[in-house]
Amino acid sequence: MPGNSFGQIFRLTTFGESHGVGIGGVLDGCPAGLHLDLEAVQVELDRRRPGSTSLGTTRNESDKVEFLSGILDGVTLGTPIAFLLRNTDARSKDYEALKDIFRPGHADMTWEEKYGLRDHRGGGRSSARETAARVVGGAIARQLLATHGIRVNGYVQQVGATSTTKPYTALELDSVWNNAVRTADPAAVGPMTALIEAVRAEGDSIGGVISCVVRDVPLGLGEPVFDRLEADLAKAMLSINATKGFEIGDGFAAAAARGSEHNDTYTFGTRKLNTPQSGAQVRVEEGAIRTTTNHGGGTLGGISNGEDIWFRVAFKPPATIAKAQRTVDRSGNPVVLEAQGRHDPCVVPRAVPIVEAMTCLVLADHLLRDRTVRAHISAPQ
Amino acid sequence: MPGNSFGQIFRLTTFGESHGVGIGGVLDGCPAGLHLDLEAVQVELDRRRPGSTSLGTTRNESDKVEFLSGILDGVTLGTPIAFLLRNTDARSKDYEALKDIFRPGHADMTWEEKYGLRDHRGGGRSSARETAARVVGGAIARQLLATHGIRVNGYVQQVGATSTTKPYTALELDSVWNNAVRTADPAAVGPMTALIEAVRAEGDSIGGVISCVVRDVPLGLGEPVFDRLEADLAKAMLSINATKGFEIGDGFAAAAARGSEHNDTYTFGTRKLNTPQSGAQVRVEEGAIRTTTNHGGGTLGGISNGEDIWFRVAFKPPATIAKAQRTVDRSGNPVVLEAQGRHDPCVVPRAVPIVEAMTCLVLADHLLRDRTVRAHISAPQ
Amino acid sequence: MPGNSFGQIFRLTTFGESHGVGIGGVLDGCPAGLHLDLEAVQVELDRRRPGSTSLGTTRNESDKVEFLSGILDGVTLGTPIAFLLRNTDARSKDYEALKDIFRPGHADMTWEEKYGLRDHRGGGRSSARETAARVVGGAIARQLLATHGIRVNGYVQQVGATSTTKPYTALELDSVWNNAVRTADPAAVGPMTALIEAVRAEGDSIGGVISCVVRDVPLGLGEPVFDRLEADLAKAMLSINATKGFEIGDGFAAAAARGSEHNDTYTFGTRKLNTPQSGAQVRVEEGAIRTTTNHGGGTLGGISNGEDIWFRVAFKPPATIAKAQRTVDRSGNPVVLEAQGRHDPCVVPRAVPIVEAMTCLVLADHLLRDRTVRAHISAPQ
Amino acid sequence: MPGNSFGQIFRLTTFGESHGVGIGGVLDGCPAGLHLDLEAVQVELDRRRPGSTSLGTTRNESDKVEFLSGILDGVTLGTPIAFLLRNTDARSKDYEALKDIFRPGHADMTWEEKYGLRDHRGGGRSSARETAARVVGGAIARQLLATHGIRVNGYVQQVGATSTTKPYTALELDSVWNNAVRTADPAAVGPMTALIEAVRAEGDSIGGVISCVVRDVPLGLGEPVFDRLEADLAKAMLSINATKGFEIGDGFAAAAARGSEHNDTYTFGTRKLNTPQSGAQVRVEEGAIRTTTNHGGGTLGGISNGEDIWFRVAFKPPATIAKAQRTVDRSGNPVVLEAQGRHDPCVVPRAVPIVEAMTCLVLADHLLRDRTVRAHISAPQ
Repeated sequence: MPGNSFGQIFRLTTFGESHGVGIGGVLDGCPAGLHLDLEAVQVELDRRRPGSTSLGTTRNESDKVEFLSGILDGVTLGTPIAFLLRNTDARSKDYEALKDIFRPGHADMTWEEKYGLRDHRGGGRSSARETAARVVGGAIARQLLATHGIRVNGYVQQVGATSTTKPYTALELDSVWNNAVRTADPAAVGPMTALIEAVRAEGDSIGGVISCVVRDVPLGLGEPVFDRLEADLAKAMLSINATKGFEIGDGFAAAAARGSEHNDTYTFGTRKLNTPQSGAQVRVEEGAIRTTTNHGGGTLGGISNGEDIWFRVAFKPPATIAKAQRTVDRSGNPVVLEAQGRHDPCVVPRAVPIVEAMTCLVLADHLLRDRTVRAHISAPQ
Repeated sequence: MPGNSFGQIFRLTTFGESHGVGIGGVLDGCPAGLHLDLEAVQVELDRRRPGSTSLGTTRNESDKVEFLSGILDGVTLGTPIAFLLRNTDARSKDYEALKDIFRPGHADMTWEEKYGLRDHRGGGRSSARETAARVVGGAIARQLLATHGIRVNGYVQQVGATSTTKPYTALELDSVWNNAVRTADPAAVGPMTALIEAVRAEGDSIGGVISCVVRDVPLGLGEPVFDRLEADLAKAMLSINATKGFEIGDGFAAAAARGSEHNDTYTFGTRKLNTPQSGAQVRVEEGAIRTTTNHGGGTLGGISNGEDIWFRVAFKPPATIAKAQRTVDRSGNPVVLEAQGRHDPCVVPRAVPIVEAMTCLVLADHLLRDRTVRAHISAPQ
Repeated sequence: MPGNSFGQIFRLTTFGESHGVGIGGVLDGCPAGLHLDLEAVQVELDRRRPGSTSLGTTRNESDKVEFLSGILDGVTLGTPIAFLLRNTDARSKDYEALKDIFRPGHADMTWEEKYGLRDHRGGGRSSARETAARVVGGAIARQLLATHGIRVNGYVQQVGATSTTKPYTALELDSVWNNAVRTADPAAVGPMTALIEAVRAEGDSIGGVISCVVRDVPLGLGEPVFDRLEADLAKAMLSINATKGFEIGDGFAAAAARGSEHNDTYTFGTRKLNTPQSGAQVRVEEGAIRTTTNHGGGTLGGISNGEDIWFRVAFKPPATIAKAQRTVDRSGNPVVLEAQGRHDPCVVPRAVPIVEAMTCLVLADHLLRDRTVRAHISAPQ
Repeated sequence: MPGNSFGQIFRLTTFGESHGVGIGGVLDGCPAGLHLDLEAVQVELDRRRPGSTSLGTTRNESDKVEFLSGILDGVTLGTPIAFLLRNTDARSKDYEALKDIFRPGHADMTWEEKYGLRDHRGGGRSSARETAARVVGGAIARQLLATHGIRVNGYVQQVGATSTTKPYTALELDSVWNNAVRTADPAAVGPMTALIEAVRAEGDSIGGVISCVVRDVPLGLGEPVFDRLEADLAKAMLSINATKGFEIGDGFAAAAARGSEHNDTYTFGTRKLNTPQSGAQVRVEEGAIRTTTNHGGGTLGGISNGEDIWFRVAFKPPATIAKAQRTVDRSGNPVVLEAQGRHDPCVVPRAVPIVEAMTCLVLADHLLRDRTVRAHISAPQ
């Protein structure tokens, strides 16, 4: 059974192989009447694009998105939005030698065993190139979220053992596009950059952690008991190539805490209320129920509680390294492999837009799902 | 849009409130012709049951499951399997005082805001009592998995700051039911038990971590790109009450590693092959592609690679504590809350069967999904 | 893959075998805050109940529905609504002789071939008894529809070759419960009743046609291109036991018509507008776009156009007859079969509530789906 | 909630507007390892293509399909198969005059009311041009079915009041592509052709009926209780533009029949068994349970019984006619409309490939779904 669609109502289906005709997707369920800034979609794609950061692969794809349907004069029609990014810089011959070899840490072996065959060129569909389609879908989702004032920001929090320990509230989240490593802490730019360059020089690779923050999210998103908001976020993150872990709020640290420390107690306060369809127009609600702390990370019982949502995603080091590795070929003969192709020494800088995109897809879907749970329709929050 | 179903083909829908008529579920998509051991289902329920461990709540539910459909003479019919556990020891009056108070760390506030009303008695449907239905579904899933020889074992790895650092391969995984804390490390039983009892005496609560291991899993489970096996496991775990994090294989530690350390290189070796429908009859396949290490945790590219699957799940401390906590009532008046009701000081001992159940549900679903991805049907692995 | 759920958002899953513990269902996605009249649900069940009409089977089931979850003080919680009807008058021994015989026109053979086994007692899950669960779900759907003023009425239009040719607009649709044959045409009651009784006396059975009309339905229900309103209605009707055909509006007669006859031309007129949540409060909208005729049956391009929806459903004669029939047993030996058990000579009188229920389920689902298709939320129509 | 996908496992999502960039789709869940004849896909498209029959529209689209993913060297990879047909002969200016007028019988009004806006050019997504994508998906489905020996054939049975009354068993089903009216009865070609041409000359349009037959279908397809095979076929057919009715086997005629006439009694006989993956290699099974008649149309209890599946689909006359029609504009002013654009006087000749395509999609989906319903996997039938 196919697994290439994400979301229940706001639903993205992606297609394409790394060295095939192109990568694309169909976004079904995007509501009608949304005014799209198509330039902004391209900007997000450019942030993920191979060649977008000096710390990434040298493969150079222009990644210009062509919209095929669903939009008329910049406005969504309520019909499926299909789009295509043609592959232009595929060098399939780099992969000829890999036809009969299973690369350690890559999906070659499992895909071939599962399907009985595989597209070996550039990893086929298991390539991270597929995530370009997610970025397009996520960029449209972000524009729907923006009409409710919701903001989504990711940043690199850790590269190898180098991390920033500042809380997100102390960081300029929008500053990440100003540095190649995509961190929000100016003090971390230097050390992280140096580490990635050192690792590249060694012919090795390195892992990292991305933090993501959602601000001004309305109360009420998430569908218990299985489609809890954090459950869908966890799935979204673990569906990204090379991810190994997800934690929300205090996460694994909560396991060591006591209830009297961890519970976010309530108080009465103010809440910024974003009038839908007019992000600029912000009201302040008095007498809102707020938490005094946010150990939980913005959800309670699987439902957003109106506080910031914050979570972290762990990425393993990229599997492709220039260093020699022992492996076997299809017939079991020992082989020593040295990487061909063009690859990233560290995936997290280019993965920030992907984490953001998947977050936007989850939230847009739940925003629409939430419209159906009350018998009486009222104005959106 | 509803969120009370889990799985695509092997699909469990649960229902019920903590203090309503009962808790139950409908398991649709369980294949026909499976000989069920219904006693074994009850054994799994008993392990989760309130009152099952001396370290848990004093609520005492017999949790006897009544099957309503789908089974004839102990064999599944291929029709929906419905079941019901009636609530017998609900003390709803304990909760009268909580009608107008939002308890910190509980889902009271978010559920009421989302739906416009809530069942305040015992937490209604946000109570962990709902997970009893998951255990029933998971127990049936486990019996389907067993016909393929697949084994699923969870154990408490950490309570507060007390943990066992032994790898799962050094533990007797089946021994967890011999101790109240549900750990697989005999040396950890004492310290973990003492910690939980101390916390209970203080009127506080404590978090923990559960590890889960799947052995003898066939190659090929998982449906990229979104329904990767680890993505569905992550969602399954984060759908359990009180969970805050998920990591597979080296997880967050992989973020600090280099590719040359983390990559699981290939070798040729032997693999135990379980003949479906006859777990006892084990063959050994020569010349199988195996990994020399298992940093990845048993999946590659979102698909099981035939090695053990191992992952960890973080649980926060239970929200209900006897210690006084400041909160507000519905009108914003400050209130000091001391817990009513009967609760667990630490959730992980009773959550082991739930983690196992959700794991079994994910695997059973993917086992069936995998049957549909090749044009030519061959014998199962 | 399971097929026991219906609807995308307002989603009913049914379970149960004819001679098992009982029949029931789980309705997930019913919005919170709907005030339910549970007596009215029982009234609808009673109309389908075996024994409800003098023209049906003599099996006598009280069909008292027990609600297990999702409702507190008569108001929906937004959580799954589970319910159970216990079987009380099952006479399984009537079916012992049928264990090895495949009855003509029954699902015995196909179910056994598909699943490898079957519950032979009373037809197991292929029995029309399953539709009792649909009536419960439909009755709740109807109450959601009623808050929008929508009315759903079915009636028997044809029994064998005896039919009423009066258009539905000339009939008293609510009068069907006053006669055993469930027709809305007083002149047809006599002939239809006489025909069914004659057929019963012969030990034979007879087919029929049910018409269904939906009035005061809002514009805009239906989700092209595949989930067109008439497509989902067609599926709903053909999912009912013994149905052989569906047509909407002029239906098959439209095949013989010309465009200049069939097109429903537009005019400006008035439209009754039902204020949601207050059916009594009816406004009249001036200047609405109306059609001058209604050959189309109330949908256009897969979307309701605000005119009455009207369609017809064909039922075959019940397969079980007392007359001797030649068939074969499991081993291929010729057998002469004379019916055991208690059965209906004509299914349409008792099928009226089922047709209505499935119609209500389709409309409730589309009412909720329609809430998600526009970027800007406005008051419902 | 979106409605642009069809099928559960073998799942087609279509996109595109009539006068936009193009029409296309993504087929997810097509199993891996299927050797595709891409020329045959184009042949099926050519049969539906505007300009393909002298009796249709004069719009001339080459309808050359470009495959974007999921196929390597003519073999399916098990990944999504995306495809695109660019629009080349769109004359959007023909539609400028229709921007503010709602055409009778067209989806203009309902789409605009539902979504708040519409693409008025060529009917946008409500145009039958969308069905080109279904034909591509159906052509691939047909090739999967062919590996099981299943054959699907449609033909025009009725145009206006002119019909062929010969049973399908007396017709050469493969002969339909030899005549422009797409009937299988040589005697009907002349009268049907003459009628369509006469109607066109009058500036009018005419309806019709398509019959469809599935031969050599295995026992066991269909998933009760809701996803019965005939229910999914009915939905598939009513999802096609301009359809008004569906009936299977005796259909509406069964309503007038008695059980003793309608029941298909059993006998023992032979059955042609197609070895999967080798259509040429046909075995004959002795001692199969067969029916002596086929009033039911090939399904029983929602499951295929191994006999031929046969059903009929009613189409209304096309809404666009050259004859003057009274209607209103957006402001309610009376308008007299005479058709602009290029259209078909009768839709059934070009709809035969669409009916076949939707049938193939339903069967392919159910073929894969059936693989998951038994605990023990056996060779396919």
